[in-house]
Amino acid sequence: MRISFEEMQNQFNRVLLKKGFSPERASLCARLFAEASRDGVYSHGLNRFPRFISYIDHGYIDIHAEPVFLEKSGVLERWDGKLGPGNLNAWFCMNRAVEIAKEHGIGCVAIRNTNHWMRAGTYGLQAIEAGCIGICWTNTLPNMPAWGGTKPQLGNNPIVFAVPHPKGPILLDMAASMFSYGKLEQYAIQGKLLPVDGGFDAEGQPTRDPQAILETRRLVPIGYWKGSGLSLVLDLIAVFLSNGNSTLEIGKLPSEMGLSQVFLAFNPDALSGREAILHSIEQTLEDLKSSGDSVLYPGQRMMQTRAENLEHGIPVDPDYWNAVLAM
Amino acid sequence: MRISFEEMQNQFNRVLLKKGFSPERASLCARLFAEASRDGVYSHGLNRFPRFISYIDHGYIDIHAEPVFLEKSGVLERWDGKLGPGNLNAWFCMNRAVEIAKEHGIGCVAIRNTNHWMRAGTYGLQAIEAGCIGICWTNTLPNMPAWGGTKPQLGNNPIVFAVPHPKGPILLDMAASMFSYGKLEQYAIQGKLLPVDGGFDAEGQPTRDPQAILETRRLVPIGYWKGSGLSLVLDLIAVFLSNGNSTLEIGKLPSEMGLSQVFLAFNPDALSGREAILHSIEQTLEDLKSSGDSVLYPGQRMMQTRAENLEHGIPVDPDYWNAVLAM
Repeated sequence: MRISFEEMQNQFNRVLLKKGFSPERASLCARLFAEASRDGVYSHGLNRFPRFISYIDHGYIDIHAEPVFLEKSGVLERWDGKLGPGNLNAWFCMNRAVEIAKEHGIGCVAIRNTNHWMRAGTYGLQAIEAGCIGICWTNTLPNMPAWGGTKPQLGNNPIVFAVPHPKGPILLDMAASMFSYGKLEQYAIQGKLLPVDGGFDAEGQPTRDPQAILETRRLVPIGYWKGSGLSLVLDLIAVFLSNGNSTLEIGKLPSEMGLSQVFLAFNPDALSGREAILHSIEQTLEDLKSSGDSVLYPGQRMMQTRAENLEHGIPVDPDYWNAVLAM
Repeated sequence: MRISFEEMQNQFNRVLLKKGFSPERASLCARLFAEASRDGVYSHGLNRFPRFISYIDHGYIDIHAEPVFLEKSGVLERWDGKLGPGNLNAWFCMNRAVEIAKEHGIGCVAIRNTNHWMRAGTYGLQAIEAGCIGICWTNTLPNMPAWGGTKPQLGNNPIVFAVPHPKGPILLDMAASMFSYGKLEQYAIQGKLLPVDGGFDAEGQPTRDPQAILETRRLVPIGYWKGSGLSLVLDLIAVFLSNGNSTLEIGKLPSEMGLSQVFLAFNPDALSGREAILHSIEQTLEDLKSSGDSVLYPGQRMMQTRAENLEHGIPVDPDYWNAVLAM
């Protein structure tokens, strides 16, 4: 079952207006959700939308709240998300980081008390569209054991690196766990082994069996001790810059809310050598291509999926789609 | 065999002076090498020193060259390393990034035409000592296949995240390959299996056998496709900001030289809430400790090793030590 991008966006928009969003905010929020599905990130597009609405219904998300400026030190600004919609807050922050970068080369916005930003890559693409290099990350609730531990103490704290290029966006959107719970469930339902070890079984052995990992909840960080450390430092830097909740503190809240995030934009426009730089980057991408079709740069498959989904419609799980239609 | 920190530093200093370094530059360079071994990073301390000297002898490193300012856009500066000693250049850059950050909240220095910076964590500790959060990375020569490929096209591009804290530095110093060649050789000599998969064997299967990986040279990136993407974007951002060589271009040079690096410092001093933030970070570290002695935060083991090595002397491989004494 495939649904056109416009139809999906319109349905999200209709529901958000019904929930009380202002027309402008409903439109942006609907677009960001629909673009996630359009680009193949279904887990944070259509499939996440019902949960987003339920968080509004539970009062975890204040649909009218907008970020409030707290303080700044030069190009580093601190904002309070006031528990507004995470994607609108994050969009605001990257936009603000880009504004600062356009004036001062680099802009950084740290936000506290915000909510799940849905698809992480959204804000990397936003920086790219403004001609900037973007780096941003968020903390999450505790959902992954630290290396050497067995209970979830770290978040999977997605981080995004985004590089503009005329051949298409170069976009790394990466969580610190090797696989998400959604991915493990998908493999388990299909009765397939993971392509690589994804966690530990009940005997504490690394395993490719998704069901065994779903039972132990011992997801493995990317690069084991390295991803464990990466998750921790991203959490601590977000806390340091925003003076917001840590993953530990988020774990004590009634739901995944009150997150801390960092948005960095670099504007290289005022520096020389742009043509040579873009050419050099293209040479690297061409070199990777020379190794065969199985070698992809981050963002390459996304653009293929986007083209397919715009032409043929976005594939949807009928359960999620019907749930949205019924809202 | 153990050597005191002072003795090691003095020997390095003696050799560098003999090579023609100015006293001030010899002293800093010797200290940084000795501190790497003091902190347990032997591979980039004593064990790397002879190769550093041979690079000078080959003319790959110009011992008198200092970074030259090229241009800037606000808080983002671009410098040329003039193929000077990589650790002195990198030290200069993080110092400059901190200077900018003290004035404008954030400072960023991108340097091109520099050399291997030796121990990556050095510049994170440098930011921490200045009261700043530090992030820095370097590209390298091609030494790791991209995910899906078989020949080395990516660098292992180490990245550092450094967070100051009164309990001790929080320092992640992480390459994008799961294991270095040095580590694989160490396991192979000891006849041990790697603790986790470290690459692919001749049949293309993931393996913990270090010898099999040394033969295929198919090291695995951390998190497989994720580390592959991370390595690429770090290379491209370094190229974009510095207008310097990419990993692809470095691979065409006579040696690992002419690298591109990025140094970021964040100065949170002018922002409020410092006490609460440090307390929150401490709570997170305490929470990790509650999971047992096997859970460490990045930097924790380093401080234990430093204390041991300062008390008992730094353990040295006699071959390397005697080579330095003979210089």
